[in-house]
Amino acid sequence: MSVLIVGSTALDSIKTPKAENPRLLGGSASHASVAASFFSPTKLIGVVGEDFPKKYLALYKKHGIDVAGLQILPGKTFHWSGEYEVNMNNRRTLLTELGVFESFTPVLPTAHQGTPFVLLANIAPALQHHVLDQVKRPKFVVADTMDLWLNIALNDLVSLLKRIDGFVLNDGEAHQLTKEDNVFAALKKIHKMGPKYVIIKKGSHGSILSSPQGFFICPAYPLKQVVDPTGAGDSFVGGLMGYLASAKGSIDANLRRAMIYGSVTASFCCEGFGLIRTTKTKRSEIDARVRELEQMTKF
Amino acid sequence: MSVLIVGSTALDSIKTPKAENPRLLGGSASHASVAASFFSPTKLIGVVGEDFPKKYLALYKKHGIDVAGLQILPGKTFHWSGEYEVNMNNRRTLLTELGVFESFTPVLPTAHQGTPFVLLANIAPALQHHVLDQVKRPKFVVADTMDLWLNIALNDLVSLLKRIDGFVLNDGEAHQLTKEDNVFAALKKIHKMGPKYVIIKKGSHGSILSSPQGFFICPAYPLKQVVDPTGAGDSFVGGLMGYLASAKGSIDANLRRAMIYGSVTASFCCEGFGLIRTTKTKRSEIDARVRELEQMTKF
Repeated sequence: MSVLIVGSTALDSIKTPKAENPRLLGGSASHASVAASFFSPTKLIGVVGEDFPKKYLALYKKHGIDVAGLQILPGKTFHWSGEYEVNMNNRRTLLTELGVFESFTPVLPTAHQGTPFVLLANIAPALQHHVLDQVKRPKFVVADTMDLWLNIALNDLVSLLKRIDGFVLNDGEAHQLTKEDNVFAALKKIHKMGPKYVIIKKGSHGSILSSPQGFFICPAYPLKQVVDPTGAGDSFVGGLMGYLASAKGSIDANLRRAMIYGSVTASFCCEGFGLIRTTKTKRSEIDARVRELEQMTKF
Repeated sequence: MSVLIVGSTALDSIKTPKAENPRLLGGSASHASVAASFFSPTKLIGVVGEDFPKKYLALYKKHGIDVAGLQILPGKTFHWSGEYEVNMNNRRTLLTELGVFESFTPVLPTAHQGTPFVLLANIAPALQHHVLDQVKRPKFVVADTMDLWLNIALNDLVSLLKRIDGFVLNDGEAHQLTKEDNVFAALKKIHKMGPKYVIIKKGSHGSILSSPQGFFICPAYPLKQVVDPTGAGDSFVGGLMGYLASAKGSIDANLRRAMIYGSVTASFCCEGFGLIRTTKTKRSEIDARVRELEQMTKF
């Protein structure tokens, strides 16, 4: 089955202690769509400006990503610039130029409205709502978010939680949303806000799923070197949704393995700037790391 | 088989945001020995003063811990006092009164010198060396440490690493020892310093084993509430060694499961002040949580 993904489509200028790369393809929808495309047909909903490099459009297409829902508007593409500290855990934003993203209204082509798997990647909750308003009886809807929306659009986010099946956030955001320091206490509170499935991302420490079947402790793939973690969370949830859409059987039967596939896809993302490593990845490499993780977690 | 454990035996006065408990039984050897005692005969090597409460001696004995190597000297028992911050991750030491611990020289009763499993729990590396000097052809030796020894006894610790099979430290200490931010890069460097098996503890994020068989990613048992994490790392390594000593087969065949048992034993430690919850724990409760962790990591 196919996956519909809405989110940001951006140019990222990223600085790490070791290197600097300007205007790479970035944004939550770009990372999530490329990740999902390894597993299932993927439809991207987003907006870029007339300055958006043709090579990036070609890159989407090379991954078989349907860009019928990608608007190309007069003006500039969303541009984000950020810098990582030595340990690659903390980053600060240097610059945010919204460009055409400022007035983005996602519009779903008619052919996209029946897509069974819907990923509301990180974007303003109001736009996530707007996409949900346009899809017809989706099978499974997951939303991602970021601290910014907890700060400036909390009400929209809280009402969104009642409309989705799965919610993905990181441990800092879970704390911010629930005021709970303990991840498992936070999970309990988030379920009460709506979603049946809640996944808390913990970066290099992996992630945790809470569902009616209990907890699943999902490992991160061990990396000796992280080149650039930008987009890792988006790759995780994109790979997860792509795998889920490809798998036969129930969501409950497949969700754990989907998280493992998301985790592995995110590991490739971290090994290069922007999408450089991810777009060079072969499905066989992903499968090999999944088998490695199986070995590394058996006892 | 049996386990010999050397470390500190102390009275801990612990303050958390929710409560305060003075003069509880504590110290690395106390926590590790009680944890190991669930699985194997355990021999404790330590020192206390004449003020050491009789009820704590009775508690060791209730757990079947052999205290022939516990010296009772004129003077006061080592007393540590610490306070945890709201999130229970950071603590600060309020007071350290070494007492009889200041001049501690561990002496192994003759009957202890052939113990096959030796745990050098957290204590000055010079004392860990001194215990190793007295044991005869042990089957498996593991050492734990803390940041203090990296600061004030680095040479002793580095020479110890050449004499042991397994080394346990937390992620902050691994960074301090190797200057590597990345855990997996740090592990590689630590192996070069001697130990065949290296375990990095990451608190509520679990732990990682690096061995000739590759990595093992060991989960922490999910706790909705942490009452007091003091001694959790000691309980982890104590449970690990106790389980290993009880298991048939090779170290390599049992080490992963031993870490899981250590992890679960540590989870009980965190659910009460000092050793209060651990000493009320039944083996059947430990086994039940191990089965739960199996369920939570399958995919």
